[in-house]
Amino acid sequence: MATHLSKLTSLILGTSLMATVASAAIGGELQKVMKARGLTENDIIHAAKTYTPSGGRDEFIVFSSGGQSGQIIVYGVPSMKILKYIAVFTPEPWQGYGYDEDSKKILAQGKIRGKSITWGDTHHPALSETKGVYDGKWLIINDKANPRLAVIDLNDFETKQIVVNPVFKSEHGGSFFTPNSKHILEACQYAAPYDNNYHPIEEYKETYRGGVTVWSFDPKIGRIKPKDSFTIEMPPYMQDLSDAGKGASFGWGFTNSFNTEMYTGGIEVGMPPFEAGMSRNDTDFLHVYNWKKLYQLSKNKKNVKVVNGMKVIPMSVAVANNALFLIPEPKSPHGVDVSPDGEYITICGKLDTHASVFKWSKIKKLIDNHEYAGKDPYGIPILDMKKSLHGQVELGLGPLHNQYGKDWKNGEIYTSLYVDSQIVKWNYKTLKVLDKVNVHYNVGHLCSMEGKSADPQGEYVISLNKLAIDRFNPVGPLHPQNHQLIDIRGKKMDLLYDMPIPLGEPHQAVAIRASKLHPEVRYKMGTNPKTGKMHVGKTLAGQEKIVRKGNKVYIYGTLVRSHINPERVTVNKGDTVIFYLTNLERAEDETHGFTVDNYNVHGSLEPGETVELKFKADREGVFPYYCTEFCSALHLEMMGYLMVKDPNKKYVSAQKLKMKKMSKAELKAEYEKTVAVNNATDAVIQSVVKFLKENHYEKYPTVKALVEDALDQYGKIAEQKKKADEAVKKGDYEKAILFENMIWQYMVKTADVGIRAKDLLVKKVATKQSPAAAAGERAFGEGGCGGCHVIGKVSSGPDLTGVLLRHENAEKWVKDFIMNPASKYNDPYVKSMIDYFNLKMPNQHMSEEEVKNIIEYLKWVDENANLF
Amino acid sequence: MATHLSKLTSLILGTSLMATVASAAIGGELQKVMKARGLTENDIIHAAKTYTPSGGRDEFIVFSSGGQSGQIIVYGVPSMKILKYIAVFTPEPWQGYGYDEDSKKILAQGKIRGKSITWGDTHHPALSETKGVYDGKWLIINDKANPRLAVIDLNDFETKQIVVNPVFKSEHGGSFFTPNSKHILEACQYAAPYDNNYHPIEEYKETYRGGVTVWSFDPKIGRIKPKDSFTIEMPPYMQDLSDAGKGASFGWGFTNSFNTEMYTGGIEVGMPPFEAGMSRNDTDFLHVYNWKKLYQLSKNKKNVKVVNGMKVIPMSVAVANNALFLIPEPKSPHGVDVSPDGEYITICGKLDTHASVFKWSKIKKLIDNHEYAGKDPYGIPILDMKKSLHGQVELGLGPLHNQYGKDWKNGEIYTSLYVDSQIVKWNYKTLKVLDKVNVHYNVGHLCSMEGKSADPQGEYVISLNKLAIDRFNPVGPLHPQNHQLIDIRGKKMDLLYDMPIPLGEPHQAVAIRASKLHPEVRYKMGTNPKTGKMHVGKTLAGQEKIVRKGNKVYIYGTLVRSHINPERVTVNKGDTVIFYLTNLERAEDETHGFTVDNYNVHGSLEPGETVELKFKADREGVFPYYCTEFCSALHLEMMGYLMVKDPNKKYVSAQKLKMKKMSKAELKAEYEKTVAVNNATDAVIQSVVKFLKENHYEKYPTVKALVEDALDQYGKIAEQKKKADEAVKKGDYEKAILFENMIWQYMVKTADVGIRAKDLLVKKVATKQSPAAAAGERAFGEGGCGGCHVIGKVSSGPDLTGVLLRHENAEKWVKDFIMNPASKYNDPYVKSMIDYFNLKMPNQHMSEEEVKNIIEYLKWVDENANLF
Repeated sequence: MATHLSKLTSLILGTSLMATVASAAIGGELQKVMKARGLTENDIIHAAKTYTPSGGRDEFIVFSSGGQSGQIIVYGVPSMKILKYIAVFTPEPWQGYGYDEDSKKILAQGKIRGKSITWGDTHHPALSETKGVYDGKWLIINDKANPRLAVIDLNDFETKQIVVNPVFKSEHGGSFFTPNSKHILEACQYAAPYDNNYHPIEEYKETYRGGVTVWSFDPKIGRIKPKDSFTIEMPPYMQDLSDAGKGASFGWGFTNSFNTEMYTGGIEVGMPPFEAGMSRNDTDFLHVYNWKKLYQLSKNKKNVKVVNGMKVIPMSVAVANNALFLIPEPKSPHGVDVSPDGEYITICGKLDTHASVFKWSKIKKLIDNHEYAGKDPYGIPILDMKKSLHGQVELGLGPLHNQYGKDWKNGEIYTSLYVDSQIVKWNYKTLKVLDKVNVHYNVGHLCSMEGKSADPQGEYVISLNKLAIDRFNPVGPLHPQNHQLIDIRGKKMDLLYDMPIPLGEPHQAVAIRASKLHPEVRYKMGTNPKTGKMHVGKTLAGQEKIVRKGNKVYIYGTLVRSHINPERVTVNKGDTVIFYLTNLERAEDETHGFTVDNYNVHGSLEPGETVELKFKADREGVFPYYCTEFCSALHLEMMGYLMVKDPNKKYVSAQKLKMKKMSKAELKAEYEKTVAVNNATDAVIQSVVKFLKENHYEKYPTVKALVEDALDQYGKIAEQKKKADEAVKKGDYEKAILFENMIWQYMVKTADVGIRAKDLLVKKVATKQSPAAAAGERAFGEGGCGGCHVIGKVSSGPDLTGVLLRHENAEKWVKDFIMNPASKYNDPYVKSMIDYFNLKMPNQHMSEEEVKNIIEYLKWVDENANLF
Repeated sequence: MATHLSKLTSLILGTSLMATVASAAIGGELQKVMKARGLTENDIIHAAKTYTPSGGRDEFIVFSSGGQSGQIIVYGVPSMKILKYIAVFTPEPWQGYGYDEDSKKILAQGKIRGKSITWGDTHHPALSETKGVYDGKWLIINDKANPRLAVIDLNDFETKQIVVNPVFKSEHGGSFFTPNSKHILEACQYAAPYDNNYHPIEEYKETYRGGVTVWSFDPKIGRIKPKDSFTIEMPPYMQDLSDAGKGASFGWGFTNSFNTEMYTGGIEVGMPPFEAGMSRNDTDFLHVYNWKKLYQLSKNKKNVKVVNGMKVIPMSVAVANNALFLIPEPKSPHGVDVSPDGEYITICGKLDTHASVFKWSKIKKLIDNHEYAGKDPYGIPILDMKKSLHGQVELGLGPLHNQYGKDWKNGEIYTSLYVDSQIVKWNYKTLKVLDKVNVHYNVGHLCSMEGKSADPQGEYVISLNKLAIDRFNPVGPLHPQNHQLIDIRGKKMDLLYDMPIPLGEPHQAVAIRASKLHPEVRYKMGTNPKTGKMHVGKTLAGQEKIVRKGNKVYIYGTLVRSHINPERVTVNKGDTVIFYLTNLERAEDETHGFTVDNYNVHGSLEPGETVELKFKADREGVFPYYCTEFCSALHLEMMGYLMVKDPNKKYVSAQKLKMKKMSKAELKAEYEKTVAVNNATDAVIQSVVKFLKENHYEKYPTVKALVEDALDQYGKIAEQKKKADEAVKKGDYEKAILFENMIWQYMVKTADVGIRAKDLLVKKVATKQSPAAAAGERAFGEGGCGGCHVIGKVSSGPDLTGVLLRHENAEKWVKDFIMNPASKYNDPYVKSMIDYFNLKMPNQHMSEEEVKNIIEYLKWVDENANLF
């Protein structure tokens, strides 16, 4: 008993609950599972902190670069479930991105010197800000290999714009919004000539340049304005990441660098490689520049030279206007991270074990006093490092990036250590190390929740590890990366979850509180999502047509469950075929896809969307086209044929096969049978409609939306009925049967959604459940009762509606039966049920409490019996 | 007390543990988390059944088609973590698939009528079998839109072959291996003419055809043999899925169909759509054919006609040889699923509420007795449905696919219900429904573990839902799909986990026990993974060179942490540039990537791999190239420049900038400092090497592999040292410094892996831990002690090696200190430590048991103090 009591004490004290439960090796489902799967007590806590049941929602949404996939990865925290890959710089076949004409136009904006680029290397996503706080409107990302930025609309998670940087030949340190999203900072990486001419590497210092481009952005419409943008010329120091000042440092930008040695490698000529020469000096340069002042200066022609259409402010102009400075910073840094109030700037040099915290007020003072420690070879004033520093602290090997915590005001900050494979929590004000946690392996960036905005949310840090090595089941020589979720709510960091990244190598990620995002579920009918405007090919029901203009054939088509209109298209070989297709659905998630076999086009049409697909019908033959989504039970039947005829060929008709035909009487009988089935189906639908109306479905928005979807389908029946009746009048029963069949198809689709609406409405209009009844419903579901019993319906077991009315002492009877079913197997009523269903009620081992609750639930069912 | 006792009883009884714990609203970490996140008791069980801690392994690996992404998705069960997207029919930029020359050759195998196709619609993956059981060697998948099959090697998860079906214009019902993987069945879908000519839809019955292609496959080398393959002509019935017979039915194939009406739609000409006409009849036809006999027949020219290079056996020949039959089957079926012993064939008609179980012995008897119910219009014998049936059972609305359970011998089977959105468990022998579970929403295929092989493994079923609707945080109008994991080990099915699919629309998935897969982690140096042979461009260290042949420039280059050799390449505008690149790494997961900015090429080089990249240098200018993977701390420095010169242009040298130069004395001082740092670093490395050798690292394969990786890096130092010393001899300190820097880089990389090897070796050679010490080590780690204390090292807290020696009554002292640290804050020793580290030991609320174990662990540490 003493032992038991001590366990009980642990249980009530709590913290060691799991330890006790597990080590006691007692029975119980959880212990069995833990033992079978080798889980520790902490594993269960971690599981509970991350497991998100069906229909659950994540607290935060993460946008991660997809690296060499050229995409963006979207996932939830804490579930670490990947929700979407957003197509950005590379074709994405599922979404039809690069396979339909509208998305091809977006990709074409990314051409460089007239050439298509279908590859990209996304690095640093940024979320738009209002007063430095994420507003959930726009997302931008850069392409390192082909200096470009893309804008993604968070209303529909689609890429809307790609802009090329015409002077850089490489770009790593983008993209960073200024606090009101009016500008974006994009830094060069590998220095190169601004022009497009050959310049020998021997003239690196003279003709190669780095720099930062300051793009103008219109946060209302979410578009970059290239003409209002400019580039700040900088020395060929290999600029790296940047950050925009905020609060105290608003108007200033900070960009670090890693090759102030200006070393240019050359193993092939007997020189040590770039890596040796680039890390020779103990310090590199932080670039500090007043982008706000320079933006004003850029409006005056005399301050700029125009290169490849881009306004460039020469270093000399920036220096003359006291708008560009250098500060020595720790060797080969990665991140430069401005604190939420703009007062501290934390920089880690990956080849230095320290983090260096610079203080804006100190820097500003040096600038204001023109107090310089010297000038670089290009005449840029250098500020003294020590005088600019708040302080330094030793963190470990290979510190890279920093993210601020919720308690940033008191100095909370997190830094990734690449070589040590750790995340370190420290205090950037007191310069103390507080905690370290091992990650697996070799972390690059890290991502705290809104951790670089003016309002860090705390709670979690994600470690974006570059190597996974042994973390997951092996999948060949190419491994996934590993994003690890760390709980930072306690004093100690707690590693919760490993998520493999199955595609791409993410570099940086940004997280936003999920409640700030409000994406839409459908487009206004006929929308071109790439422009946000009505599509020139918008086609509504009844407007379908095929129009020939010269050798161009325009098909104005529609898609709706489960047919494509038109279903047959014949063109001549050599014609250009343009499909304008509109998805007529309004139901959420009712996407249709479209392809023409062998013609290498694909459109993904979300509800309301119109797309254009275009190709040259350069091959004779018969080419099926079909809906590529499993959009309904009849999705395979949602198809048609493109027939390409050679106009110069003569075709001979095939000899007709003789097929047995049905007699008129047989056809009439089949017609009548079909009508009878439809009438019976309609009666069911009408009963549901009556129920919906009587219970005022229109008062409940989600139910209303479902009913509208269902009626949308039902509304299509009248037209088919008319056609069927006309066919009957003409004595064409064959055709009448087919139209009646079509009516049945619409009825099935109506019922599919209508019944879902009814089930939802029942929940809304039923009398309020007591907490006990609600618990009972859950126990009923989770205890497995629902496997056989469906309320309101005979299923694998009897309907339980009215069960409390059909037995004497019903509550006791039901309770006894649930607790010990075998005791009643000989009860005549139960016996008859066993015979009927050929199943015995099993003992589900419910507790008394659960049974009590289930009985409360059954009472509630009876109160609302009319609803089932 | 009574209340407490009843809780205790529940605890010991076990099953209702979680219910009690949660409802009691007591303290405790788990309860807190459950409350905060709104988790139920069942949620915790589900979490425990799926949560896989860092480094854990999944039991099963699932290969799912990627649908319109043209790829294959690989994920683990039960963790439901996505591990990889395998590139198959569409370019995949991350893997360089379609961006390097070697993968372009694979994609080019998929050209149809000479045209590149960069889009694909993967549907049905199949795993190779030996005696009907999955052998983990090969994976094949089909493209519905452009009838093609691809072969993936499970040794490296790479696509090795694509084969085009030259007679079909559409293909859905592939791919299905025969039981020894000698053949693959691939059925047509949308009927079309076999030739490539125009045939009007009015001649559908006469000139359009369906069919099944029987591909020969060589399971030793994993290649399809097109010349040994043939197609069975079939009527234009829109064949759908297939399955190969096994056991009793070995040698036979089964393919169903959904348009035996041969209806051809035409909304645009006033006809009801395809969907209406295609579902008019109450039954369609199951095609039953003896592929084994037909394969032998296909070897004789007189039995075949050759169309587009494919041998076709006409229906008449198949019928004449008693090798093709039809059986009526339920209306518009999806799956046809042969039982593990080959005796039962289960088919569900999606527009019929029943599953129909056919029995092979009955079918065989009818065939053997030539007992036909009639013939179809093409002369194919029809067998009587009722006489072929074992029986039918009503399952629900929209039954689609079936998978067998572990207890298949006793009839265990699972079926997906599309319209009802349920998985139903039933018995195909007794024809009883056993259980239903709701899924969310509209399930297509389902996947049980090896559930269609001869040896189903049970345990789980995955529901591949087509719609997610409200299951996840919204991400715009385009939703992910939802794969739901269901536990089938109990009597009742138990829905465990929802996994969103972020890219593509999976159709079918196959699962294999993870222990059957043994993928490799590296290639033999210089391998072309696409062919499995040595690459023509294989280049080892020291063999790097640039060779010009006419206007072709061949660069034989290498990549190793962290440089590319060569680092500068100059070519003429108009030259064709061919990069042959070899990744010299042998370390696991040490992938390098390579791109040349703006030239739209990308290679992903796994350890040992050689790739070819090729482009025309058609633009003058300076183009950085770089390693696209974050392969080491110096990954940004792993770069070079391609310079493209216009041979017809004259270039004027830029005026040299004057830069301050270091004096010889300064250079000498820097050189000496650099050498000193290197010597100190080397001393650390030598101490680790000594430790490794003394402790016989070579006895432990994983440690040995790490040491080899480390020595691989270290071995590169001698050459650099020689260069540095030569430079010193010549008085070129500048160069000597750079080579010494390079030596340091190699030392850092050596140490990175070497220290990991040492840590692992410590575990291997240390004295065996007692269970208590092992539990103590876990408690030490999980309790957060490791945040401050690193064994063998002073960290944020003191080194604990020897802690039990440095205090009187040490065990009690340590115990008291852990249980109540504050009580010792004034102890002089503790006080000095607090001052030194500026941290107070916190109370981690360890249980007595845990502290006891930690002390055992510390004893073990002291026993092995020499190892740390």
